[in-house]
Amino acid sequence: MSGITVYPGSFDPITNGHLDLIRRASRIFQPLAVAVLSNTEKKSLFTVNERLGLLQDILGDIDGVEVDTFDGLLVDYLRGRGARQVLRGIRALSDFEYEFQMALMNQRLAPDIDTVFMMPREEFTFLSSRLVREVALLGGPVDAFVPPPVADLLKEKVRP
Amino acid sequence: MSGITVYPGSFDPITNGHLDLIRRASRIFQPLAVAVLSNTEKKSLFTVNERLGLLQDILGDIDGVEVDTFDGLLVDYLRGRGARQVLRGIRALSDFEYEFQMALMNQRLAPDIDTVFMMPREEFTFLSSRLVREVALLGGPVDAFVPPPVADLLKEKVRP
Amino acid sequence: MSGITVYPGSFDPITNGHLDLIRRASRIFQPLAVAVLSNTEKKSLFTVNERLGLLQDILGDIDGVEVDTFDGLLVDYLRGRGARQVLRGIRALSDFEYEFQMALMNQRLAPDIDTVFMMPREEFTFLSSRLVREVALLGGPVDAFVPPPVADLLKEKVRP
Amino acid sequence: MSGITVYPGSFDPITNGHLDLIRRASRIFQPLAVAVLSNTEKKSLFTVNERLGLLQDILGDIDGVEVDTFDGLLVDYLRGRGARQVLRGIRALSDFEYEFQMALMNQRLAPDIDTVFMMPREEFTFLSSRLVREVALLGGPVDAFVPPPVADLLKEKVRP
Amino acid sequence: MSGITVYPGSFDPITNGHLDLIRRASRIFQPLAVAVLSNTEKKSLFTVNERLGLLQDILGDIDGVEVDTFDGLLVDYLRGRGARQVLRGIRALSDFEYEFQMALMNQRLAPDIDTVFMMPREEFTFLSSRLVREVALLGGPVDAFVPPPVADLLKEKVRP
Amino acid sequence: MSGITVYPGSFDPITNGHLDLIRRASRIFQPLAVAVLSNTEKKSLFTVNERLGLLQDILGDIDGVEVDTFDGLLVDYLRGRGARQVLRGIRALSDFEYEFQMALMNQRLAPDIDTVFMMPREEFTFLSSRLVREVALLGGPVDAFVPPPVADLLKEKVRP
Repeated sequence: MSGITVYPGSFDPITNGHLDLIRRASRIFQPLAVAVLSNTEKKSLFTVNERLGLLQDILGDIDGVEVDTFDGLLVDYLRGRGARQVLRGIRALSDFEYEFQMALMNQRLAPDIDTVFMMPREEFTFLSSRLVREVALLGGPVDAFVPPPVADLLKEKVRP
Repeated sequence: MSGITVYPGSFDPITNGHLDLIRRASRIFQPLAVAVLSNTEKKSLFTVNERLGLLQDILGDIDGVEVDTFDGLLVDYLRGRGARQVLRGIRALSDFEYEFQMALMNQRLAPDIDTVFMMPREEFTFLSSRLVREVALLGGPVDAFVPPPVADLLKEKVRP
Repeated sequence: MSGITVYPGSFDPITNGHLDLIRRASRIFQPLAVAVLSNTEKKSLFTVNERLGLLQDILGDIDGVEVDTFDGLLVDYLRGRGARQVLRGIRALSDFEYEFQMALMNQRLAPDIDTVFMMPREEFTFLSSRLVREVALLGGPVDAFVPPPVADLLKEKVRP
Repeated sequence: MSGITVYPGSFDPITNGHLDLIRRASRIFQPLAVAVLSNTEKKSLFTVNERLGLLQDILGDIDGVEVDTFDGLLVDYLRGRGARQVLRGIRALSDFEYEFQMALMNQRLAPDIDTVFMMPREEFTFLSSRLVREVALLGGPVDAFVPPPVADLLKEKVRP
Repeated sequence: MSGITVYPGSFDPITNGHLDLIRRASRIFQPLAVAVLSNTEKKSLFTVNERLGLLQDILGDIDGVEVDTFDGLLVDYLRGRGARQVLRGIRALSDFEYEFQMALMNQRLAPDIDTVFMMPREEFTFLSSRLVREVALLGGPVDAFVPPPVADLLKEKVRP
Repeated sequence: MSGITVYPGSFDPITNGHLDLIRRASRIFQPLAVAVLSNTEKKSLFTVNERLGLLQDILGDIDGVEVDTFDGLLVDYLRGRGARQVLRGIRALSDFEYEFQMALMNQRLAPDIDTVFMMPREEFTFLSSRLVREVALLGGPVDAFVPPPVADLLKEKVRP
């Protein structure tokens, strides 16, 4: 494998599905950079700094995984990092059509970079950051869906 | 069957597709509560009170059907009502992926509650509240798609 | 609810996904007839009698569930049983398009009969009788996917 | 064929995928009106006038193709033009479900009008106006995805 | 439009969905050749001659429509007929992925030929030749789904 | 990465889409075993030996790629090879639902093994071994879709 692999995303917030994927990906792709997209225009529940902090806290003990942030075009970030592979999660219940469009677009923008997909475990098939935010904002329990530090910060955020 | 069945939705506005589903569901699930989600953050064309009024007007003659409203987490409302079944419509042309995600999330939040899906008749396959709103806002005729009281109120709403 | 509900299928063989669905459906639909399609033209791994025997063995302790067999047109069987509802499982990873076609066709053949869909638990999302047969025929372990009597008979069937 | 064919869309902006489709459609459907939806409520990157100008510039040399604009209900515009056919592009990776809903709704609103679908070439399967806007706004190169006049105006628009 | 348009298919048998599509297509595409694929390897319920006879009987009164048969590669047949457009039906509930694959393959084999898609009316969304055969073979009524001459011949075919 | 990566398949025959995927995968996964499933029950156009020969001929010059064959359960083969990753191609126009089912089943059979997906280039989106066989059997040109040795052998196979 040539160089670092990048797993980009919003991670707003990281879920147990992301965490499972990162753990398994780290057995294959080393080093692996988990890169938070700091898109200032898109509204998010957690600030970029909060997301970076949570990721560092949660992923700190996984060998070969580092946390980073980027803005602008993904392929520019990849080139800056010397990355040749980008990793994306793909769920049967997710927007794989959008994933395919992005992967093909990136292939055209940077033919030397490949997108690799991995699936979360079946028990995380239904899970998404958006669903977690919706449940938390309605006062529902999210402890089963996100790592403890995320659950704690979510509770603070949605406290009336 | 144990207790009441809940058919939650936005009903912004109720369409002939919803009405067909409710009529047929009421033959199977009694009592059946049609429950308007009063999500104050989501913009709607009709107010919650208008939607409740329309539903009571339109569904008043169907045995075993009542109209209700709720906010917060669906599973909390279901528990408050002693409901064990939640009914959702599913169309070949609708976002069933989102329906599946919601059903699986609710299964995790409340394992004792089941989601049951029914389909509208083929002639309503294409119909959605959003499409009805779009057509009405552009001045198109909606009488074939919604019950008469909805058509009347829609015409008032979109009058320039 | 009017009369019996029918859950038709090939059950070649019954899986833990079917079993989970039947258990949960029996809380809502009573009585519930699990009906094996004895289509003599379609090749099956288990004979109709074997499938009936396994179902009776496995479902015997569930209140309000009976086992039956039918051939010919489903709607004819439903009418003969006085059934007004037919239950079908629907998985995110299954052929729901075929399910929708069948449901709409049956709606046209018998407008007074409704199809109701339920989902298996997430852990059974990937499971199908066909996959179980494929794994067993290749000598793989299927104990986690089917009830013990099915696993036993499968082992006999595929013994060289 | 009876009268003019209409190819409606937002064209915000026109891509090489649209251009390929229009070129090929013009061999079959003559005359062909490329009609920009001037929906004042929907935010767009290019103004309606900019989009009309770009289309006239780019499509000026294609026989039998004219550029137009419309607001309100599509079927009203079609009737005003005496059009009996509406053309829509359909991509494997696009929202064909929405296309089907629209086509069925229009069929109900105007049974005498038919929707005809054509596909872009495989190399444009991934391409959409939205993706082009996203890439341009992030400073990425779009010359391979849109005609030169669009690329030039995009560069001006996103200049900091 | 340049020359004839070809609507190829198995038509085993023609359904009311095909008939609706052909009627509407004949308003746009003239002349229109409905071409039966005489693939001797694929098992069919009706012989090619029976299918041709039924099509001629049923389509005889539609202006500008002729019936034909072909074997071998579709693009070879199209070239032999001087056809530049091939018409395919596409249903929300059909195998559009296969349709897209075929259309893209044909585009590569014959770049000068375009595939045009039309949809059946919503009431035929669920209908397919395969479903009609299945219902008829099980003794069910098919009069609502196929033209009378097809229904008559089907009854003869499935008479025990 | 731990050990070898396996790319299993029927390769009946290998297409330019497979070849593109293998070339790109070999930049990431080294060593990579391309493994032909020798399922004696499934009918194939090419014998296992022919397929092995073609693969060795075509892939011989790609560093770190070897050709192998297996029967039985994929996870048993993976364990025998000490493989921790299995690679699968996934196309927007392919049966990804089946791929997901297989991946989830394999995850259950062997939790320590992960499935990694890669996409072919857009120009191969429509391409499949089945389509190539169909075109060749009808006498169509396949030189653009398969490597030269495959095209040659296909021509021999289908010579009348």
